[in-house]
Amino acid sequence: MSQPTKFLLDESRMPRDWYNIAADLPVPLPPPLHPGTLQPIGPADLAPLFPMELILQEVSTERTIPIPEPVREVFRLWRPSPLVRAHRLEKVLGTPAKIYYKYEGVSPAGSHKPNTAVPQAWYNAQAGVKKLSTETGAGQWGSSLAFAGALFKLEVKVFQVRVSFDQKPYRRALMETYGATCVASPSEETNAGRAILAQNPKHPGSLGIAISEAVEVAATNDDTKYALGSVLNHVLMHQTIIGQEAMLQFEMAGDDPDVIVGCTGGGSNFAGIAFPFIGQQLRGGKKRRIVAVEPAACPSLTRGKYAYDFGDTSHLTPLVKMHTLGSTFTPPGFHAGGLRYHGMAPLVSHLHQLKLIEATSYKQNACFEAGVLFARSEGIVPAPEANHAVKGAIEEALRCKREGRSEVILFNLCGHGHFDMSAYMAFHAGQLVDQPYDEAELAMALSGLPSVPA
Amino acid sequence: MSQPTKFLLDESRMPRDWYNIAADLPVPLPPPLHPGTLQPIGPADLAPLFPMELILQEVSTERTIPIPEPVREVFRLWRPSPLVRAHRLEKVLGTPAKIYYKYEGVSPAGSHKPNTAVPQAWYNAQAGVKKLSTETGAGQWGSSLAFAGALFKLEVKVFQVRVSFDQKPYRRALMETYGATCVASPSEETNAGRAILAQNPKHPGSLGIAISEAVEVAATNDDTKYALGSVLNHVLMHQTIIGQEAMLQFEMAGDDPDVIVGCTGGGSNFAGIAFPFIGQQLRGGKKRRIVAVEPAACPSLTRGKYAYDFGDTSHLTPLVKMHTLGSTFTPPGFHAGGLRYHGMAPLVSHLHQLKLIEATSYKQNACFEAGVLFARSEGIVPAPEANHAVKGAIEEALRCKREGRSEVILFNLCGHGHFDMSAYMAFHAGQLVDQPYDEAELAMALSGLPSVPA
Repeated sequence: MSQPTKFLLDESRMPRDWYNIAADLPVPLPPPLHPGTLQPIGPADLAPLFPMELILQEVSTERTIPIPEPVREVFRLWRPSPLVRAHRLEKVLGTPAKIYYKYEGVSPAGSHKPNTAVPQAWYNAQAGVKKLSTETGAGQWGSSLAFAGALFKLEVKVFQVRVSFDQKPYRRALMETYGATCVASPSEETNAGRAILAQNPKHPGSLGIAISEAVEVAATNDDTKYALGSVLNHVLMHQTIIGQEAMLQFEMAGDDPDVIVGCTGGGSNFAGIAFPFIGQQLRGGKKRRIVAVEPAACPSLTRGKYAYDFGDTSHLTPLVKMHTLGSTFTPPGFHAGGLRYHGMAPLVSHLHQLKLIEATSYKQNACFEAGVLFARSEGIVPAPEANHAVKGAIEEALRCKREGRSEVILFNLCGHGHFDMSAYMAFHAGQLVDQPYDEAELAMALSGLPSVPA
Repeated sequence: MSQPTKFLLDESRMPRDWYNIAADLPVPLPPPLHPGTLQPIGPADLAPLFPMELILQEVSTERTIPIPEPVREVFRLWRPSPLVRAHRLEKVLGTPAKIYYKYEGVSPAGSHKPNTAVPQAWYNAQAGVKKLSTETGAGQWGSSLAFAGALFKLEVKVFQVRVSFDQKPYRRALMETYGATCVASPSEETNAGRAILAQNPKHPGSLGIAISEAVEVAATNDDTKYALGSVLNHVLMHQTIIGQEAMLQFEMAGDDPDVIVGCTGGGSNFAGIAFPFIGQQLRGGKKRRIVAVEPAACPSLTRGKYAYDFGDTSHLTPLVKMHTLGSTFTPPGFHAGGLRYHGMAPLVSHLHQLKLIEATSYKQNACFEAGVLFARSEGIVPAPEANHAVKGAIEEALRCKREGRSEVILFNLCGHGHFDMSAYMAFHAGQLVDQPYDEAELAMALSGLPSVPA
């Protein structure tokens, strides 16, 4: 009899609460600041953008927050997601390590993003909101919010980073299938977009700019709120269902991870798989290595500054303390659009400062090589973002091989690449370049960080 | 507490045998004939194309055939597939019917096709074969065989119907990611392809032509065998794991289907979900309505002739008795490329003759409307082929509403539409046409059927 491959949790065992790591932090998270007064902002400052339930989650220090039943009902369409033992990949690598992956691509939108899109849409609908505006990079977040909007009858407007809008027309088709509207950012529809187009009509866009546009639309329209797909505390908390499920599934497997790997753009899928395990450690449990993998071309954790900065390019958001490349930094147009963000979630940055997590970065082609190796052994074609986690896990497995150690490696396969095949076509054709970021631009962006007294 | 949504079977309960409906048929299937002698062909006639194990399965009348353990090991990457209760769709339709779907889109290639691609590749590899050639329409079969080839180190060459090759470049990218080669058919690489291009250099292709090309390559190269994605008895049998799993899952649900719906092109996904239930009935069990749904533009079961015909356009295959539109019939270039076949599986045709199944057809736009309604309620965006089953199931549910009956409807959601978003874009833009087939061409194709004495 073969060893089991998949560990499936019945939906009756789906977690009933989100895990809030704020309850277990040894040092509290530095608060967001009002950019004018430099004083900590309060819930009222966020009220134009978010419904009060989400604002309260953002600042909560309760360890657990119940997942509303209507949200769990939707989750049952695909959750709990499978935990899979990558027997074939292990064999191909010849590693004594055991490799497991949690597969979030089973959601209707194909990634982990619906884990927060659905509750965000639900809380907004409960608060009587009719329209949501948001940004998206590769389109995984935009299509997830479009899906969630369809379920709760909310109009959804998505500003998609232009380079991804052009590279991935089928993501837009997916958003439209769910009934949402999608425009390329920078756009002519907002002051923020028009100002940037005036300087550079062919601007490729960035998540920072798209956030400015979406925030502006919400701030200037009474019936519209804003939804963010990563970075914020409540968004990361919504993703903790991933790690909590994984814990139950490792019990089924009779195993326990020694190393946990996730890719990081804004930080949400990484937080989702890692935070429940880090929380366990903070409460006196097993110490594990937790590895964040980011693109070499947009390396906020490994090359950015830990400082207060704006979340967007046009400076409409509060200041948050995070690893940042500077809010005016525009990363090269590589294919992992979901990782093209100048900053990093404050919680992830804070944990990195506390040395509770590690960070590393890889170049685009090396990540695609890892993704193709994974596809040819395990079947699933990962999203370009997820290829970074695959690469990180493979490197850990090869280290175990060199060291002769049979560690247990867990990584988050946060989405499939079905809407990213143009990137694979470029890779197969040898046309993917490892375009580095512009050092001078990075220096300039970092020199422009807002000055905040310590 | 809500009613359950998903019924997941642990991989330890995955069926260990395929179900062979030949064992339970009240009238035996008419045999395939040699086109020259018009005599029934024997295993030796098929040996240039297939390994002997598959030929023996093709002619077997054993009720069960064991699934080899290495094949089950691969299946565990995604099988058992989920059975899902479509609560939200029921609510949107306001029907008293219960709607369930078996979701085959969880496979790495995104459809039911790997259920037969994996065993076909394995039996070929066991027989020492190095290369496989095949045809594909929309690309679901081609990418599935490419995936299976990657696992067992077989070179795979795919002839893809030109209209789909052009409409769906990302399917080709998927095949290439798995390491296969894909060319547009008709191609310059075979006599069959060159002959058709000489008559019409812009020929849109058809499954019949692509089969001719793939068969020619296998017949003329010693190291190459041919693999077919539908139609043949052993292919349909490999799909019966779907219906067998569904039976176990309905036990978990405490329900039992009254109506079973599947889309039909060559007939394999339909057979997969339906045959185990039909077999139960043939052995004295419950009588159910079994509904095959085909495209109005390629209606072999509803408008074709039940007669001996060639499986391919260039007449390289044996003659099989089936519902056919004539082997020279070229259907219009609609988007459900997997259903653009002139014939129907002999077993499905036979069951239709015996009145054990019903058949109906719908137009393209009506099927896409159904697919979008499904996506906005259940999340999954179905493949254009699967939209036919969705449409069929919705029509049954609306009939139940009119009649005030709470029947249990099961349909096979045979694949997702992630690689078919160009079709959804055309639909959203109002550019999908319900192009009818050419009546004169159909009449001509039918008049050219080979004459076989009764």
